[in-house]
Amino acid sequence: MAQKPSIPKGTRDFNPEQVTKRNYIFNTIRGAFETFGFQPIETPSFENSNTLMGKYGEEGDRLIFKILNSGDYLSKADNEAYDTKNSNKLTPSISEKALRYDLTVPFARYVVQHQNEIEFPFKRYQIQPVWRADRPQKGRFREFYQCDADVVGSKSLWQEVEFIQLYDKVFSALKLEGVTIKINNRKILSGIAEVIGASDKLIDFTVALDKLDKIGEDKVKEEMRGKGISEAGIAKLQPLFTLSGSFESQIDGLKGILSASEAGQKGIGELAFINAAIKELELSTATLQLDVTLARGLNYYTGAIFEVAAPEDVKMGSIGGGGRYDDLTGIFGMKDVSGVGISFGLDRIYLVLEELGLFPETVNKKVEVLFINFGDKEALYSLKAINALRLQGINSELYPDAAKMKKQMNYANKRAVPFVVLVGEEEVTSNIYTLKNMTSGEQQKVSLETLIKLVK
Amino acid sequence: MAQKPSIPKGTRDFNPEQVTKRNYIFNTIRGAFETFGFQPIETPSFENSNTLMGKYGEEGDRLIFKILNSGDYLSKADNEAYDTKNSNKLTPSISEKALRYDLTVPFARYVVQHQNEIEFPFKRYQIQPVWRADRPQKGRFREFYQCDADVVGSKSLWQEVEFIQLYDKVFSALKLEGVTIKINNRKILSGIAEVIGASDKLIDFTVALDKLDKIGEDKVKEEMRGKGISEAGIAKLQPLFTLSGSFESQIDGLKGILSASEAGQKGIGELAFINAAIKELELSTATLQLDVTLARGLNYYTGAIFEVAAPEDVKMGSIGGGGRYDDLTGIFGMKDVSGVGISFGLDRIYLVLEELGLFPETVNKKVEVLFINFGDKEALYSLKAINALRLQGINSELYPDAAKMKKQMNYANKRAVPFVVLVGEEEVTSNIYTLKNMTSGEQQKVSLETLIKLVK
Repeated sequence: MAQKPSIPKGTRDFNPEQVTKRNYIFNTIRGAFETFGFQPIETPSFENSNTLMGKYGEEGDRLIFKILNSGDYLSKADNEAYDTKNSNKLTPSISEKALRYDLTVPFARYVVQHQNEIEFPFKRYQIQPVWRADRPQKGRFREFYQCDADVVGSKSLWQEVEFIQLYDKVFSALKLEGVTIKINNRKILSGIAEVIGASDKLIDFTVALDKLDKIGEDKVKEEMRGKGISEAGIAKLQPLFTLSGSFESQIDGLKGILSASEAGQKGIGELAFINAAIKELELSTATLQLDVTLARGLNYYTGAIFEVAAPEDVKMGSIGGGGRYDDLTGIFGMKDVSGVGISFGLDRIYLVLEELGLFPETVNKKVEVLFINFGDKEALYSLKAINALRLQGINSELYPDAAKMKKQMNYANKRAVPFVVLVGEEEVTSNIYTLKNMTSGEQQKVSLETLIKLVK
Repeated sequence: MAQKPSIPKGTRDFNPEQVTKRNYIFNTIRGAFETFGFQPIETPSFENSNTLMGKYGEEGDRLIFKILNSGDYLSKADNEAYDTKNSNKLTPSISEKALRYDLTVPFARYVVQHQNEIEFPFKRYQIQPVWRADRPQKGRFREFYQCDADVVGSKSLWQEVEFIQLYDKVFSALKLEGVTIKINNRKILSGIAEVIGASDKLIDFTVALDKLDKIGEDKVKEEMRGKGISEAGIAKLQPLFTLSGSFESQIDGLKGILSASEAGQKGIGELAFINAAIKELELSTATLQLDVTLARGLNYYTGAIFEVAAPEDVKMGSIGGGGRYDDLTGIFGMKDVSGVGISFGLDRIYLVLEELGLFPETVNKKVEVLFINFGDKEALYSLKAINALRLQGINSELYPDAAKMKKQMNYANKRAVPFVVLVGEEEVTSNIYTLKNMTSGEQQKVSLETLIKLVK
């Protein structure tokens, strides 16, 4: 019957230290979300398959975990797919539910389903796991948390301003100083494509531009040529490759490049508005930067596009991202609801805080006082003191067995308990406690009152 | 493309109020767990199927949600099962993973897998959802949370004592006074079965006895007769049916009934020890009660059995349960590790708190201050004040659009915002704010400093 236990690839067990550190990040994000007026919702781990399928492209459909129907599921199997052993075609007839792939589509479904109970603009946040059947690799898991905040029902650019402040607030609270909040706008990208006569190749064009950081100017141009963008068009892009300096000077550069595009002008106006407000309101520790190559999730975003980069000395992809999408709920039949939102990448933030040693020492609040167990009479006496300590919110415990002193002290050391209390016959008789400070090694006999005071 | 959105049966969306109330319960339980020295772990939502299958009986196996393998899963399908269209037999060849069915088996797997990193006795808690393909009905869902605390690696009865205190602590903290913590012991049930000559019918016997509350003495006896328990044996049970009064007097009664059973005597000893300790340590608001008919999860528990009943005036099944199991990790090849644990039933606790009106008024901490938006200049001025309020931890927001006043005030009312701030040209010029108390209707012009003070 014995099995060698293991967990599915791409999944993780979290030990107490890891859970506590993760919760520190979750709580910081949650706290900021609530201060900004966002309200929590939660949706089921699995949705009806037709809610999810077709929403993330072909690749996404493949990466969605499907749940097998219960009971004699083959009795309803699609006959043709079954006879031809066609997995893809068979799936819809034997699986009606699928695990959540992100929080955005379930949120859109939620908004449409509950539209009559919701006050718009609706500011919601959601912190829940999602699942993807991706090939696991370093930093990429099959189960991971997303932390999203979105507003739906308003086109106001003040939301974009607030999301930048929210990023700043969270990373400042985490003491992760020096992050860069990159911003771009879909309308800028459309404008550029328009200007170089490649509006029909917007996706190809932006996918290539997005790689500028990684592969450099020459290779980007090569890729554009390969996608059929004209040499004349590419020549027009030249100022884009040399765009640099402050937000304002980049905006000025863009004004020249995009003078002929209405969409482009509109995008410039939005960026300038957001930048002016942020300059006036000031960020604590983050920097706002215009990045015209930023294109993440383009077929999705219609206005602002955000991405957050960790401080420069840390090698890490983006630790957050988001943007504005003008018709998210349309897929569920509710038109013209504009939304804008951002997301925090928990796993990467965790790695960055770990690398920079930014988790507070106190984050892993373990047991503060361990009572050594010398026998039932002493244990009962100890538990009375433990009750009093716990009432004061002090994490304390009794070693459950009257084991050898050495074993119990060993346990205290391994768990890094700062205080140990020894209760023998003498202590019970005199109504006192022997308190040992495990750091200094100092030992003293004290009353319960003093014990509580010293431990606190 | 439009779809009428819905969620799978047996699952739930949680709106902001519900999430907040649920978190209030989670946080209370979590806080108590930590005060008692328990440490959090988390395990993946899905496990390898062979970790779960066969651990919950045939019924359990059927209720486990299985995840379809990715890609061309039919290429590895069991040929014989496929040709005979045998769903049950086919499943293992097309599904290797399954959703967590409870937290106990994954915990056992965790302990065995990580035994070299763990300090024993290991006090862990775990608060995560589980999934069961049960027929949904009132109060029974396909996705629900379990909140478990367990200790493994100690046979000490002080753990049982501490778990009773922990129940008392949590329910007292939730202001749910008057719960009854019922306790029994597997050894008592074995002893009774032994005494009436039905040791081979222990399960049948206890299943019948467990129904005493619901169906009454006569029907219980009838069921026992049906299961082949002798008339002489049933006669010997008579004192059991009339067992009543205090914990101590019931113990005395049991001593007579079980005088001939060694196991029974041992069970009595354990119960008496636990009761004496609790009498000495005292509970705040709960009552400990001996209930010899209590048998939940019998094939599992080897010592103490716990169940918590809501206050008598609330019609609700058990809101918690647990017990001692002597060889949980044996299924994964690690022998002789005794464990004991308890669980809290979140959904039922929620219903009880709701019914008795015990959620604190402040639990749903919403937005405290809404700034009415009169235009961009005023909005920017408002956001500076909002920054200051948020720094003080005051949840505040700007209405994102310069919409009609009536619409904005309507939003404030619907969301029950206690304070609204109005900022027009006059306020910007004079560097003041008009604060409106939405309860009293009172309105005053104040400085930012006063605004913060009044709102706090």
